Amino acid sequence: MPQRMFLETVRSEGLAHLSYIVGHAGQAAVIDPRRDSSIYQQIAERHGAAITRIFETHRNEDYVIGSRDLARRTGATIHHGARLDFSYGQSVCEGNTFDIGQLRLGVLETPGHTHESISLTLADATNGPDPVGVFTGDALFIGDVGRTDLLPEGAEHAAGLLYESLHRTLGPLGDGVIVYPAHGAGSVCGMHMAPREFSTLGYERQHNHALQLDRDAFIRHKAGEYHDQPPYFKRMEQYNQFGPPELTDIPHPCPLDPSAFAETMDEGLFVVDLREPEAFAGAFVPGSLCIPLEMLASYGGWFLPYDRPLGLVAESSDQVGQAVRHLLRIGYDDVAGYLSGGLGAWETSGRPFGRVRTLPATELRSRLESGEDFTLLDVRKPNEVAEQRLKGSLHIHLGELPGRLDEIPRDRPVTTLCSSGRRAMIAASILKKHGFEQVENNLGSMQACLAVGCPTET
Amino acid sequence: MPQRMFLETVRSEGLAHLSYIVGHAGQAAVIDPRRDSSIYQQIAERHGAAITRIFETHRNEDYVIGSRDLARRTGATIHHGARLDFSYGQSVCEGNTFDIGQLRLGVLETPGHTHESISLTLADATNGPDPVGVFTGDALFIGDVGRTDLLPEGAEHAAGLLYESLHRTLGPLGDGVIVYPAHGAGSVCGMHMAPREFSTLGYERQHNHALQLDRDAFIRHKAGEYHDQPPYFKRMEQYNQFGPPELTDIPHPCPLDPSAFAETMDEGLFVVDLREPEAFAGAFVPGSLCIPLEMLASYGGWFLPYDRPLGLVAESSDQVGQAVRHLLRIGYDDVAGYLSGGLGAWETSGRPFGRVRTLPATELRSRLESGEDFTLLDVRKPNEVAEQRLKGSLHIHLGELPGRLDEIPRDRPVTTLCSSGRRAMIAASILKKHGFEQVENNLGSMQACLAVGCPTET
Amino acid sequence: MPQRMFLETVRSEGLAHLSYIVGHAGQAAVIDPRRDSSIYQQIAERHGAAITRIFETHRNEDYVIGSRDLARRTGATIHHGARLDFSYGQSVCEGNTFDIGQLRLGVLETPGHTHESISLTLADATNGPDPVGVFTGDALFIGDVGRTDLLPEGAEHAAGLLYESLHRTLGPLGDGVIVYPAHGAGSVCGMHMAPREFSTLGYERQHNHALQLDRDAFIRHKAGEYHDQPPYFKRMEQYNQFGPPELTDIPHPCPLDPSAFAETMDEGLFVVDLREPEAFAGAFVPGSLCIPLEMLASYGGWFLPYDRPLGLVAESSDQVGQAVRHLLRIGYDDVAGYLSGGLGAWETSGRPFGRVRTLPATELRSRLESGEDFTLLDVRKPNEVAEQRLKGSLHIHLGELPGRLDEIPRDRPVTTLCSSGRRAMIAASILKKHGFEQVENNLGSMQACLAVGCPTET
Amino acid sequence: MPQRMFLETVRSEGLAHLSYIVGHAGQAAVIDPRRDSSIYQQIAERHGAAITRIFETHRNEDYVIGSRDLARRTGATIHHGARLDFSYGQSVCEGNTFDIGQLRLGVLETPGHTHESISLTLADATNGPDPVGVFTGDALFIGDVGRTDLLPEGAEHAAGLLYESLHRTLGPLGDGVIVYPAHGAGSVCGMHMAPREFSTLGYERQHNHALQLDRDAFIRHKAGEYHDQPPYFKRMEQYNQFGPPELTDIPHPCPLDPSAFAETMDEGLFVVDLREPEAFAGAFVPGSLCIPLEMLASYGGWFLPYDRPLGLVAESSDQVGQAVRHLLRIGYDDVAGYLSGGLGAWETSGRPFGRVRTLPATELRSRLESGEDFTLLDVRKPNEVAEQRLKGSLHIHLGELPGRLDEIPRDRPVTTLCSSGRRAMIAASILKKHGFEQVENNLGSMQACLAVGCPTET
Repeated sequence: MPQRMFLETVRSEGLAHLSYIVGHAGQAAVIDPRRDSSIYQQIAERHGAAITRIFETHRNEDYVIGSRDLARRTGATIHHGARLDFSYGQSVCEGNTFDIGQLRLGVLETPGHTHESISLTLADATNGPDPVGVFTGDALFIGDVGRTDLLPEGAEHAAGLLYESLHRTLGPLGDGVIVYPAHGAGSVCGMHMAPREFSTLGYERQHNHALQLDRDAFIRHKAGEYHDQPPYFKRMEQYNQFGPPELTDIPHPCPLDPSAFAETMDEGLFVVDLREPEAFAGAFVPGSLCIPLEMLASYGGWFLPYDRPLGLVAESSDQVGQAVRHLLRIGYDDVAGYLSGGLGAWETSGRPFGRVRTLPATELRSRLESGEDFTLLDVRKPNEVAEQRLKGSLHIHLGELPGRLDEIPRDRPVTTLCSSGRRAMIAASILKKHGFEQVENNLGSMQACLAVGCPTET
Repeated sequence: MPQRMFLETVRSEGLAHLSYIVGHAGQAAVIDPRRDSSIYQQIAERHGAAITRIFETHRNEDYVIGSRDLARRTGATIHHGARLDFSYGQSVCEGNTFDIGQLRLGVLETPGHTHESISLTLADATNGPDPVGVFTGDALFIGDVGRTDLLPEGAEHAAGLLYESLHRTLGPLGDGVIVYPAHGAGSVCGMHMAPREFSTLGYERQHNHALQLDRDAFIRHKAGEYHDQPPYFKRMEQYNQFGPPELTDIPHPCPLDPSAFAETMDEGLFVVDLREPEAFAGAFVPGSLCIPLEMLASYGGWFLPYDRPLGLVAESSDQVGQAVRHLLRIGYDDVAGYLSGGLGAWETSGRPFGRVRTLPATELRSRLESGEDFTLLDVRKPNEVAEQRLKGSLHIHLGELPGRLDEIPRDRPVTTLCSSGRRAMIAASILKKHGFEQVENNLGSMQACLAVGCPTET
Repeated sequence: MPQRMFLETVRSEGLAHLSYIVGHAGQAAVIDPRRDSSIYQQIAERHGAAITRIFETHRNEDYVIGSRDLARRTGATIHHGARLDFSYGQSVCEGNTFDIGQLRLGVLETPGHTHESISLTLADATNGPDPVGVFTGDALFIGDVGRTDLLPEGAEHAAGLLYESLHRTLGPLGDGVIVYPAHGAGSVCGMHMAPREFSTLGYERQHNHALQLDRDAFIRHKAGEYHDQPPYFKRMEQYNQFGPPELTDIPHPCPLDPSAFAETMDEGLFVVDLREPEAFAGAFVPGSLCIPLEMLASYGGWFLPYDRPLGLVAESSDQVGQAVRHLLRIGYDDVAGYLSGGLGAWETSGRPFGRVRTLPATELRSRLESGEDFTLLDVRKPNEVAEQRLKGSLHIHLGELPGRLDEIPRDRPVTTLCSSGRRAMIAASILKKHGFEQVENNLGSMQACLAVGCPTET
Repeated sequence: MPQRMFLETVRSEGLAHLSYIVGHAGQAAVIDPRRDSSIYQQIAERHGAAITRIFETHRNEDYVIGSRDLARRTGATIHHGARLDFSYGQSVCEGNTFDIGQLRLGVLETPGHTHESISLTLADATNGPDPVGVFTGDALFIGDVGRTDLLPEGAEHAAGLLYESLHRTLGPLGDGVIVYPAHGAGSVCGMHMAPREFSTLGYERQHNHALQLDRDAFIRHKAGEYHDQPPYFKRMEQYNQFGPPELTDIPHPCPLDPSAFAETMDEGLFVVDLREPEAFAGAFVPGSLCIPLEMLASYGGWFLPYDRPLGLVAESSDQVGQAVRHLLRIGYDDVAGYLSGGLGAWETSGRPFGRVRTLPATELRSRLESGEDFTLLDVRKPNEVAEQRLKGSLHIHLGELPGRLDEIPRDRPVTTLCSSGRRAMIAASILKKHGFEQVENNLGSMQACLAVGCPTET
């Protein structure tokens, strides 16, 4: 019986990052490994394969790529696109092919998201060179295409390049080619991705809205898109071009009892509370920032400093372990400790704790109707606000909030609002951290407000 | 190389239940299996062994024993003590021995906790009959001994029996015998158990406080102990004497969206919120009962009805899965569904949600000092209250709260209090469920109050 | 973030059977579950989903389907094609659809392999009815199509039906549809399957040899194919139409020491040796049948009786556990025991053991050249022999060997031969079991013989 | 609920090495870590703990200790006995204590096996300083005591030291102390260890034969013991005193097809066949050495060169992975490749393969009775041979065989013999490798010979 070809997807939740390992006959290749990369070796070992090649579809801006650590441990060669001057690895060009047993990976240059972006075709060499799959990186997603706001030449130029990549390079591979993208639903790298990880070029050609547009419409559409550019992107780009710090291992931070935790905060510990918004509302360590665990990968890079040790408040040591991974994937390696015993230990120590009042949409509606005097702070993205907003709301994008606090009156209650109430709780914690006293969160936010009929404007 | 004898502990968190599987040479025996019992087969399989015998150290009152399901699936024989008329299995008597490869299990009758309680010595037959370990059931724990409030003849009689079992039956086995008890720290079956699962008769003889007492002092001590007797104990006793309903499999309850969840509540769904107290405080489904997941096994049996379908509010589907196991271990098999999307889905639906105000101990102290008019409701156990209580507090034991609600004034705020604030949140949710409007929870409770110097009385 | 749609493949090695579980939003469906079916529940649980539907693409003939056990444990509904009178489950027809969250499964009737064969399209309902994948059962494989020798109307009729199913029903779904077949490389249900589990209708249209043929050529091709029809097929068909015995659990057979093993053999134990052919050659329990573990699912059904208890000789208890699963998947539930301590225990007990002399191809060539007097027994399938055979060889198909032993002279050495030497070792063990004394195995067999230039004929 | 103290045993099969990790309250200590040490971090992570201390009970001679790699990855401190000049870590002395949460580890100096040997008591500090367990390293095993043939001062001196350690240092800790030794049954570091890993000082005092002897008898007994001293011990001692090469990761060797494998052998690859002796007998790659996988850790260090790349022949890639671990634990880091497709691929390539004739004891008896002319080569240890031997056998200890081949006549058949036939197959492979042509193996060996009544002498 011939040995089975294998292809496995490795997901990094939070980042919604998809990476892949393919192999045959004792060899394996990894595409876009994440930083905590031992998982690829475990999969390879399970298939009796050695990892011999690592491909980077592009210089990622939203996470630290794990190629160098993985290469160091396995002896594999790293390959990436030729149009950027990387400090490590080997450049590959259109048409290069690499054999992994009877599997053949072929390089396609698919610029647009970045200049050096490549896609990799996957062929079963026993049937000749026709690809059966393609790793599309951030060029083509399932349900969307890559963002084009990162090139120095501007979004229109980038969108033009991407259009060509999609229609001249990927499209001609044929409908029957399976698509393996670098991100799934929930990523900051796209907006309309499907919560589904199986698709083909043919299916996308028919159902991906971005592929329905002609060149001009496509460029207009892409140029008009809004995407967050959190400040940590710059660091990721540096890391991924010149090589990130070596990661010898996943550290486990120290347990700190409430007294030690408080002391360490006095010495500069920056504290992130990973619990759910409702739990933060119920009680929190004064001075801490609320970022629920599943939002940590997407929002940590907006607010967390790289030059201060981080402290965690979590519901379990399992959550601590996950947070450490989420953080190192975006380059935060200095997690100094966590609150041992969780918030309960803080509470029983007798230390004061903070609270955020929560407000159902029905109460918000009454308040709006009765014309109460308060600030309704909407922290959604500009494109969300542009679509629809509550009457009388003040808009400051969550990412800009720390720099624009003086726009918010301190003598009146502030009610934070987003789409569901989750980002609004991050905002509420920022306000609390900066001394705002009357802070409320409208849990349910816009979705609830629309459901109960709050007055809106466009 | 001779095949290794194995002994593995299976823990059921929540119940703090310890069960064991021992084996040698292709055979294995299980002591006190839990109801979700496939784990024993997995361990046996890993050691290449078939489970041939199952021992019950006594008719347990705090959980459903899994013997019959496990026996049905493996063909193993069930053995238990002779002094109770079980509807299934075989009775064993002092001195009976059972060989599992070269391991030999021997029966000791150790009444006290119940009449039919047995302990099982574990010997390596290659060295003769001397035991190297003993499974002590609920007779001897690490750091404590079994409770003696369950016999119809009364606690003094039971304590006398237990004293003999400990000193005449177990003690003479010798200091060098390892102790394998049926419960660890956190169980409702004892009070002072160590958070450590390795000990010997010799170590316990020197360090277990209950073994330091002479007969009279021991009986006085045990007769004076307080232990909760939640109403579900009766059902467990019935199940474990006559056989529980067959468990074909671990069910996975249905996801219910907020609309379906609300409808099912109208039709009689009894809703338990498994999230942490702080999260419940932040927002909850009106009408739901707060029992944090890790307290579910200990407190579910006080409050949950056996004749209504249960609905769950959880933070993750993983929590739902755990709760289903916790519940079936105490006989609740009808979990009809869970709130799909969690509380966030409820909030974004626009439905109103409940809140419980949380109160730090510093605020409580100020309020007590200023003589504010409110009810301070202490829901701890009588023995805890007897030791120390806050001045002016009203005491109603948590378990009795649903039946004594009319003792609490409805026209003033009620602040619930326990040792840490966790049980107090269960109490708060009961008050809310029964229409109390001004309900607060003192997170941190007695521990925090003592730390900040609230006025107490004894 | 919307909940992820999931699709996982469950492989049963040996049978090369592929089954699937797909799910979304708390619900899941299983396609063609195997008999040891708890794995589907584990996967569902991991995704927080309940299994609500089970589909059978057809009445399988090569394994026992696990639908009824899985349905009993989960409460799921079973669905299968309408053109056979099943004793259980519900019939479905062309065009029926079933929603699993936002996933939609649709029924296509694709007869040919059997009359009632169905395929199931998989659509993402958020994009409308177009399928993104199709579960093809035994109609279309990756690299081959289903066998057509099972219909009572004959292979030509069946091939005609299958041609229509492939070209009129499946083909029009479009190139961009991912193919999820019921078998992979190594199955007895097809001959040319690729060792690859990812493909599309478009890729198959271009690279699957059977799809290149026109109707007449296709029917000629299929009618000319040879496929084994092991006797156990009949039992599988009975089981799968009327319902197999309930499987309460995976049993673990008893360890038997050499003395007990020998005694049980005297009482009728039928012994299978699961070790590799080389190990069997080195020493074996007299009277045992050699079927290496990985061949057990494919060849067990030829030679093992259903009415005698089976005994196993293995290299590890892990192998025993795997063999038990392989056997129950093809309906052998009575594995009474295994040789404890393996063959080493048999050897050290002093009992005589059998041996098979092994012969490299170079020696066979010399012997053929020198015209030695011996029987060269080729046990390959007729179609293999027809292609090329060694000069002077006697051909008896392995499956027919037990019934044709009298065609083989007992007074001369017999050298068994197949393609690689593996089936030849099964043959050698059959000869040994039936008293042949001079039995050799040509390890490497035809492949080695061709490599070293043994004289052949066509 | 207080956090549970944990204690887990990590076994390395083959070496029968036992190491431990204990922890409490977010901290953990490891005792005698093996070289592939990520498992300790996984366990610590599961318990939410950081590894802060590593203890070495002595400079081990039979395996490479993993302290330095583990310390490098975790930041933990390494501790070992003061009576040897280690190049790394910190020395500890009698009476030093180290707290891990509420667990307290205390140092006892227990020389004898080596000078710097220490034991570590384990106390629950909440109960004061009395130990509940003790990590005894190679001083005391379950059923035996450490070997005393390694000190330069000689076995009598060492035995005297060990006697004092056992009776003056460990004994007084009290019967009720659990024993956690560094090796279990099957180790080269002791002879009579029980196949059981749970015991106490009290149980050992009564049942461990070595503890029954008075000082003089003990010294005589230990001085008279025979233990193998394989040549690799020297390298382990060097590594463990001065630090082994850093292990960045577990490598996965390259698959080599038969042709590449043969070529690499020509270039100096040293080939080890890991399959069972019966399989080696059936067919083997000419020039390879037979060491069954489970014997690799104990016998590899006798025969494998440190300065040549190793090649593996295995039954599965899983076996390859295990062998790589076994080998790196004894310092062999250069495994260059393995035979892809296993021996079957070699056979079908047409390459000649070797065979070893296997001989049941009944045939050997006949041959001995008929006075046939052959060499009966007994490769057991001197102490085994001294007890009982077959009449007319030639004795060469397996470890010395490669250097004493010229004592064996080449013109007659050689039948190898040991206790069971396993070591005898290693011997047979050595003979084959060195050109002996008529080599047989008596599978079952002495055990079988005694069972069937072969003539013996003492």
